[in-house]
Order: sequence, then structure tokens, then C-alpha cells
Amino acid sequence: MKGAVLYGPRDVRFEDRPDPTIVEPTDAIISLSVTCICGSDLWPYRGANPVKEPAPMGHEYCGIVEEVGSAVTSVRKGQFVIGSFFASDNSCPHCTYGYQTNCQQKTPVVGAQAPLLRVPLADGTLVATNEVPSPDMVPHMLAISDVLGTGWFAADAAEVKPGKTVVVVGDGAVGLLAVLSAKCMGAERIIAMSRHETRQRLAREYGATDIVTERGEEGAARIKELTRGVGADCVLECVGTNESMWQAIRAARPGGYVSYVGVPHGVQLDGAKLFFTHVRLHGGPAPVRRYLPHLIDLVTRGDIEPGKVFDLTLPLDQVAEGYRAMDERRAIKTLLTT
Amino acid sequence: MKGAVLYGPRDVRFEDRPDPTIVEPTDAIISLSVTCICGSDLWPYRGANPVKEPAPMGHEYCGIVEEVGSAVTSVRKGQFVIGSFFASDNSCPHCTYGYQTNCQQKTPVVGAQAPLLRVPLADGTLVATNEVPSPDMVPHMLAISDVLGTGWFAADAAEVKPGKTVVVVGDGAVGLLAVLSAKCMGAERIIAMSRHETRQRLAREYGATDIVTERGEEGAARIKELTRGVGADCVLECVGTNESMWQAIRAARPGGYVSYVGVPHGVQLDGAKLFFTHVRLHGGPAPVRRYLPHLIDLVTRGDIEPGKVFDLTLPLDQVAEGYRAMDERRAIKTLLTT
Repeated sequence: MKGAVLYGPRDVRFEDRPDPTIVEPTDAIISLSVTCICGSDLWPYRGANPVKEPAPMGHEYCGIVEEVGSAVTSVRKGQFVIGSFFASDNSCPHCTYGYQTNCQQKTPVVGAQAPLLRVPLADGTLVATNEVPSPDMVPHMLAISDVLGTGWFAADAAEVKPGKTVVVVGDGAVGLLAVLSAKCMGAERIIAMSRHETRQRLAREYGATDIVTERGEEGAARIKELTRGVGADCVLECVGTNESMWQAIRAARPGGYVSYVGVPHGVQLDGAKLFFTHVRLHGGPAPVRRYLPHLIDLVTRGDIEPGKVFDLTLPLDQVAEGYRAMDERRAIKTLLTT
Repeated sequence: MKGAVLYGPRDVRFEDRPDPTIVEPTDAIISLSVTCICGSDLWPYRGANPVKEPAPMGHEYCGIVEEVGSAVTSVRKGQFVIGSFFASDNSCPHCTYGYQTNCQQKTPVVGAQAPLLRVPLADGTLVATNEVPSPDMVPHMLAISDVLGTGWFAADAAEVKPGKTVVVVGDGAVGLLAVLSAKCMGAERIIAMSRHETRQRLAREYGATDIVTERGEEGAARIKELTRGVGADCVLECVGTNESMWQAIRAARPGGYVSYVGVPHGVQLDGAKLFFTHVRLHGGPAPVRRYLPHLIDLVTRGDIEPGKVFDLTLPLDQVAEGYRAMDERRAIKTLLTT
């Protein structure tokens, strides 16, 4: 098969890779009709994370089970399944507490920008839908796998609840779906921080009530203004830079919640500074597995359309252009058809 | 009157200070039969915070109201009252959310190591007891003002609840009272990290079920061992150094709570490192005011004896020796009689 492989900064290639096979009896092989590029793929693409050897790319996936290992009991050939970027056993203490991305057996899933994918720990990792979804439904299902699951965790970790005032820092796909998640959880007011018109539009469609275009200290000051000098109850940090993290912390009220769900790059928190803000901080790699059944229900019922974040569709062999479009912010998120 | 004034590292003097007077109509003057030295007083005493000008010391207090300003309505002359180290109006949005130490009008209370004290914003800051407590009760009341209130916040901010496994980092007075607070909140297991026999004994008396003497990485590893490799549900950081903070973070399970209540000195949190731990972080200057009524009840009923942390009593004119004893860890906490 052919798939995407990153060789170094801005050097992603569509090239031959061995077809995946069952390695462990707990593995499953699934075929992907569509796949996609993640905002976090841009970190190594831009050189922020060094690429030591050619790296098969992609970690968001859903598709049809082609084959399962001898120990797999909960999914079977022909089912449509969704998983997350870390395989997990879903039974260790960390999983039981709902932190499957810290599973004692966690294994990264890589190489999903390809037509076939090996998923380890299939029983703990994959959730099957009741029926194989129609093709127009598949992008919404694919979004659950990472961006929606991550946006949902952002809202959940920041304790978004009915009546709350919520700020979302970041207008990438995760930020936009964090807006949608906050809306689903009953937030009264959702302030999206964005300076891109297309993204502002989708944010409003997903439930944003206010848009703030200022950033950094100015952005936080604007949030204070909009909240009668108090600050927001819940701030969802969906970028991962030092500036965005502090923007989030400064936008929250004392006792307010700040969640952060993008891998921090260069984020330094001075303990004393953080101390006097009185914010509550919670984040990490989103335990998407925790939310899969509920999010599959929401999508299946047609309650939400998270796949709207895909505003560019390309065939997989044009994956390099898909990365370029996201890198240059011409696209929010690229869908790739295999 | 005479009170304690800090001139520089290890130079605390007992000297003449002007008697406090009503400056604002919202002030109260209270007389203190006992006062005390705080672990946080040791930061400037040890030179960790520069002393720019002679500083009247002390911020923990309870006593009899001597005089109130014309605007004060909730306390009156002759009542026994307790307050906290930040005066607060107890009515602004931050106070209403329970973060009185971030009150929009917050004012530090200083100079309590003296027989008389001016307390600003008396209506919002002071809580009166039903009766004037007996002299042997006063040290327990005094402990509420800061160390117990801070230990209580540590337990509350870490969401200690019945059945939880709790770790307390730090065996100072705050750490010991955090143990007591966790016990009151129903913790099933309370692991105190301490290597001092006297303090271990009081920790056990207050409810600690286990003692761990290791520190830093080793200490965190020991906690993991004691929790079947999982980590603790709630970790209460009561020191404020970088080592103790990371010890706390590493001792918590993914999704567990870490509270921190001592002003951080040299604490640096690398965002990416913190991210992958999945801990929840909450701390800050303890909003003691929030807890005063409940803690006064507990002490009045004789349910708790927080004043046991005072293991050295000196007359106020020997305040310098009180500091030395705490600095050299000969005393947990010094009570000063006026």
C-alpha cells in the first residue's frame, strides 16, 4: 500500500509502505475509506519536533475491520469501528478512572494516513457502531477519533456546565469542536478567540455567542471586560504555546477552570505567578476512548456535525498539498480519501 | 506598644511601634492575647524574599474587638473575632465564588505579632464567635486564622472525600493540619511524607495512616508502590519548593488532584511534562474566610485541636528566639503570649 511518511521539515511523501499485518493476537487491521491530517502533525512538519527517521504519519481513524488477532473478542470483521491515537486496554486502573491515554499498556497508533492500519489492543481501543454508516456520515465519525474527542475533553476538563461562561482559545479544528462541545454541555455564553473570518463563522455555527480577536494580554483583558471584570468560569486552551496558555490563565476568574489539550510547546508556568491566579488547571492527551460511545451516539442521531471542520478534501496521493494548506492556514483540516 | 519588626535576614527585633488606630471607617482594632509565627514568615527571615524596609511581622490573629470604625456593622467591641491574612469585603464576585484572598478590594493584614492590630474591611474579614473562648481554647482559635484554614483549603482544593487516598507533602504546621483536614473530610488513607519523629507522631495523632520518609523522585516512587503502581487520588503540597511540587505531581495518579498552598519559591512547571501527568492542579493563597464559620464550629465543639501544632510558647518579647527555633526546626510553630 501507499501512505504518508514524514522525512523532515515540510517534507512529507506519499510512498510505498508494507501492508500492516497482525503482529500480536490482540491486534486488528482496519481499512480506512477516509483519513485526515491533525493540527498536531504540523509540529513535526514545521520542525518543532525533530524527525529522527522517516515517520509514517496519521493517528485519526475509523473504518471497516478487515482482520482480527486470535485474542480479539469485542470487534469482528466487517464492523465499522472508531479508535483513538493511543491504544489502551481499557481495563487497567488508569483506564478505569477514564484516563485511557495514560493506560498502563498504552501504545501510540501511527500510520493512519494510509488505506490500511494496524490497531493494537483492539478490544480496549476500538468501539464499533451499530451499523456501517453511510459515506456522508464517515467524516463526522472520523472527527470523533481525535479532534472532537479532544475538544470534548477540553470542555469536560474545564467543567463546562449549564449556565457557565466559556472561553475557547484557539480556532483550529480542536478549538472549533471545543466550542461545539461546550454548547452540547449547556454553556450559556461561549466566547471564541479567533481572528479568521471563516473560522469565526464556523465557531458561531457551532454555538459561539461572542468573538474576540485580540490575543495575549490584550485578549485576556478583553475577556475581563466582557465578564464585568471577573473573568470566565471555564477557559479551554486549544493551541499549546506559552502565549496561548497564559492568555487562557489570565482570562479565567479565580477558582475558574483552565483546560489545555494541545501538546505544550515551550510552555513554562512560573509557580508563584500561577499561584496568585487561583485557577484550576487540568489537561493532557485527551482520553478520547472515554467519550467514544457517547460521541458516536450524538453523531449517529445527527445531533452534531463535527465533520464540518474538514474544509478541504484531497485524494491521499496529494497528502503533501494537504499539509501545505493547513500549514499556511488555507484549510482548517484536510480530509484525505483513500 | 511593642511588636516584632523584621530588618533583614535573621534580624527580627521586638521594638516600639505606634499603637494602631482606626484609619478607615471600615477598620476594627483588636487586642491579641496570643499571636504566632508562620512558616511563611521564614521566607523573608531566611532572605528568600528581600526585605526593603523594616517590616512589622505577623498575619495570624484572633482576639477581642477594642474599637470599630463608623461603617462597621457586623462586629462590635468586646466580641472575640477571627480573621485571615488578607482582608476582604466578602461581597465582590471573587469573594462570592469563595476566593476571598483574591477579593477585588483585598488588603494584606500585617503586624499581628503585637498586642494590638488594625484589621481593614472588618465586616467582610472578621467572624465573631458566640462566646469569648476560654484561654486554653484560644490557641486552637488562633490556628484557624491561617495554618488550619490553609491546610483545610489544601484538602478541599484537592477534592478530598470519603474513601480517597491522600498524600500530604510537608510536615510543617500546614502539612500537619492538612492531615487533620483530610481526616475530617473522610479520607480513607492518609500518607504523610515526613522524616521528623515529633512531626510524624502528631501526623499520626491527626489521622495519618502511613508515613513515608523518602523525598523527591524516591518519595514519589514510594507512593506509587504503596498504591499498587497507581498513584494517589489527592496530593496536598504544603511546602512550596520546586522539589516538593514535583514530588507531589509525580505522586498523583492520572486524573488525580494536586493542591498547593504555600507560596511557590523557585517552582517552574514545564508545560509538556505536566501535560503528560494528567494531574489536576489547584492552589493559591488559602481563602480562609470561606471556611471560618465551619472551622470555628469544629473547634468550639471540641471536635478538633489544631492548636497542638504550637509546640513552643514564648512571651512576645522573645519573638527572635521563636523565629530561631522554627528556622532550626526545633519547633513546629511558636505561640507568642502578649
